[in-house]
Amino acid sequence: MSDRESAINWARTNQDAALDDFKTILRIPSISTLPENKSDVDRAAEWFSDKLRDLGCKVAKTIETGGHPVVYAEYLDAKSESPTILVYGHYDVQPAEPLEEWESDPFDPQVRGENLYARGASDMKGQMIAFLTAVKAIQSTSRLPVNLKFMLEGEEEVGSPHLADFIRDHKDTLSSTFCLNCDSGILDPETPSLTYTLRGLAYFELRLRGAKSDLHSGLFGGAIDNPANVLCELIAGLRDGSGRVTLPGFYDDVRPLTDEDRREMVAKPDSWWLKQTGVPVLFGEEGYTAAERATARPTLDVNGLLSGFTGEGSKTVLPAKAMAKFSLRLVPDQDPAKIKAAVEAYLSENAPPTVTWELEDLSSGHPSISERDSASVRAAIRAFREVWGKDPVFQRQGGSVPVVGIIQELLGLESLIMGFGLPDDNLHAPNEKQHIPTFNRGIETYIHYLFEAVKE
Amino acid sequence: MSDRESAINWARTNQDAALDDFKTILRIPSISTLPENKSDVDRAAEWFSDKLRDLGCKVAKTIETGGHPVVYAEYLDAKSESPTILVYGHYDVQPAEPLEEWESDPFDPQVRGENLYARGASDMKGQMIAFLTAVKAIQSTSRLPVNLKFMLEGEEEVGSPHLADFIRDHKDTLSSTFCLNCDSGILDPETPSLTYTLRGLAYFELRLRGAKSDLHSGLFGGAIDNPANVLCELIAGLRDGSGRVTLPGFYDDVRPLTDEDRREMVAKPDSWWLKQTGVPVLFGEEGYTAAERATARPTLDVNGLLSGFTGEGSKTVLPAKAMAKFSLRLVPDQDPAKIKAAVEAYLSENAPPTVTWELEDLSSGHPSISERDSASVRAAIRAFREVWGKDPVFQRQGGSVPVVGIIQELLGLESLIMGFGLPDDNLHAPNEKQHIPTFNRGIETYIHYLFEAVKE
Repeated sequence: MSDRESAINWARTNQDAALDDFKTILRIPSISTLPENKSDVDRAAEWFSDKLRDLGCKVAKTIETGGHPVVYAEYLDAKSESPTILVYGHYDVQPAEPLEEWESDPFDPQVRGENLYARGASDMKGQMIAFLTAVKAIQSTSRLPVNLKFMLEGEEEVGSPHLADFIRDHKDTLSSTFCLNCDSGILDPETPSLTYTLRGLAYFELRLRGAKSDLHSGLFGGAIDNPANVLCELIAGLRDGSGRVTLPGFYDDVRPLTDEDRREMVAKPDSWWLKQTGVPVLFGEEGYTAAERATARPTLDVNGLLSGFTGEGSKTVLPAKAMAKFSLRLVPDQDPAKIKAAVEAYLSENAPPTVTWELEDLSSGHPSISERDSASVRAAIRAFREVWGKDPVFQRQGGSVPVVGIIQELLGLESLIMGFGLPDDNLHAPNEKQHIPTFNRGIETYIHYLFEAVKE
Repeated sequence: MSDRESAINWARTNQDAALDDFKTILRIPSISTLPENKSDVDRAAEWFSDKLRDLGCKVAKTIETGGHPVVYAEYLDAKSESPTILVYGHYDVQPAEPLEEWESDPFDPQVRGENLYARGASDMKGQMIAFLTAVKAIQSTSRLPVNLKFMLEGEEEVGSPHLADFIRDHKDTLSSTFCLNCDSGILDPETPSLTYTLRGLAYFELRLRGAKSDLHSGLFGGAIDNPANVLCELIAGLRDGSGRVTLPGFYDDVRPLTDEDRREMVAKPDSWWLKQTGVPVLFGEEGYTAAERATARPTLDVNGLLSGFTGEGSKTVLPAKAMAKFSLRLVPDQDPAKIKAAVEAYLSENAPPTVTWELEDLSSGHPSISERDSASVRAAIRAFREVWGKDPVFQRQGGSVPVVGIIQELLGLESLIMGFGLPDDNLHAPNEKQHIPTFNRGIETYIHYLFEAVKE
């Protein structure tokens, strides 16, 4: 039996143990945005660091940053001519709210049918555990044919504010042949895919203030402006009825979709989008399919609104404050810094003098397009072929993984974006899940990939 | 010494005891809109019922309604030719949120300077205690010259949903000569006033729904509409930049302000409104003063907004739901039912098919104008003159007391609207207060009023 076959066999025999590991890490609520979860985030970092040491990494540690720590580990015992893969992942998760919409506790993982439900199951503890299980399968039966460096951050879900500095500070340590980014998924359980484009992000919090405190709407309404009304008016002015962003110059840098791009896209039909979301009808810019709108066109979405009284019943308050979180997804070659300037210019021009405003830049990232014909991509294609019996399709992703752009810029490395989530995994939403059969196939695909990566 | 002088002396001697009573009832958080405060609301009702029995009311009880109980009490021992005054009040209060903006616990009353701070201090436990103290002063020294019936409701702050039915069911019991409504205030500590107009109210909650659950804004944004964006667009479409409501036909029934109306108005200057609220600039319909806008013109204000993620930091969610509470203040002769129909028509016409909507009618009340030359009003003027040394001015109030219209319609009684709050009492807002010297003068004014009310 070849080393590769032994590893595959080991993985098949030890699926339950992998699932147990998966559940253990899912129980740690490593929510990076909430200060009260700081110790959980640290605990998750330690857990991964320990795990990597157990897998044979001679260096495995957590490194402090200005925010949550980075887990760094290295396994450099492969032949010197073998490639060194920088494995990127994140151990933090999104908040679980709204809690009442979860069918089971978000931090008490539960198997229902073929899925494991918990916050972070798909995004992306599942992908990390799949990769680490692949490494374990090889280390338990032979030895890794490639060198690995791990960089697992704890701030991906808050926009990786300290990652660029970390990379700058550890440039030599991180030098590698290419990057494997596991924070991704495939199109459906029978359609393996590799992500080659990601949208960028510009995420803001807009805070308006009117009076010095909340007022009685009967006594003051009419004479004093209302920041909640103004907030609605300002947000309404940012897009038109088809969702087209109306900020001046917003589309100037958008690289048009070519006929070839459109032919190559694996387009989910409208019926998929309707079923997946349960909306009454689809929506979006004219002249584009739903798949194009969600992956290859920029957007503007409100992510949160808060003002005044939001409890049960009526309170006749004229609120002193109003807040909106909103974000724009960007496509090549849009630049988040230019978008921020456009939002600020819009507010300067349109916010009335009856309120004061404050715009906080919560998160941003450049859009990216990766090379589709490299040694790393070819190795991945061969790995998928072994497990699925077919080639992966190349997909555009609507989400944002700003680290891909950062790694390209600071380390000069192309990222292979390969993970095993599914589009219906409820990422960032209640009842997040990971499809277990796809998770198990993911482990095997990573095993094949690690053996294929040494070939040209 | 006359009976009246004895009562006034008694009141001056017992100011501390009155303040203690006041604090006791302020400690009961009788928030009518919150189900978790139901037992507190009941406790407040019992407290007032007991208090009225102690004051010599032979009937004093709580009567169940479809919601919170009504406290009903009667004192009918005055001469048969004496008038019977129906005293209206409410023992419920607004929620205290946002709690962090209170300088002291909203339900642990605290005296700072000349003010007593607590939720309900001015609206309207203070007014009720002032009136009951006036009754006590008379009952402790002589006996009431008028008959009194008390109707104290527990649902004023949620729009009095069961009061009309209660009045219909107890029409004979409630029959009186006129109504005294204590839920009001005066212009400033040196300017006594009587309220003669009140604005009406139409208060709604609008709920929008898009997808079946929250989605990842990266994976779905652009292809799926966002109910939070749509909410902002729908709210933005309800008014123009000057605050003029843009619902079709909205101003059709508005009785224009005559030159005489405008001359008679006691107009606080712009500087008062700026200082009171701390806003950068005033606001409102062209051609009207701030005082006119806030009392004699209709308005539309958002009272609450909620959607998506509102915690610290960023969460890239495309919310499934969005909610706005908003209310319109109405002036004679606008009709809340017609306004509701206009809002529904607007939503039917303008809500896009990408969301479903639901409009809940949370509260409504007719605007009112009271007679300014009646026996009751003349008695009040004489009472004010005794205490302040000057006549009260007639004021238009921007707030809504729907019960005034209900009592006019169902019992045929004019309401004298006389209370002793102040415009800077922070009604419905953090740090609500009652000005103690004005409270004490209020007690004396009510004493004089009760003696004056028997004269023609």
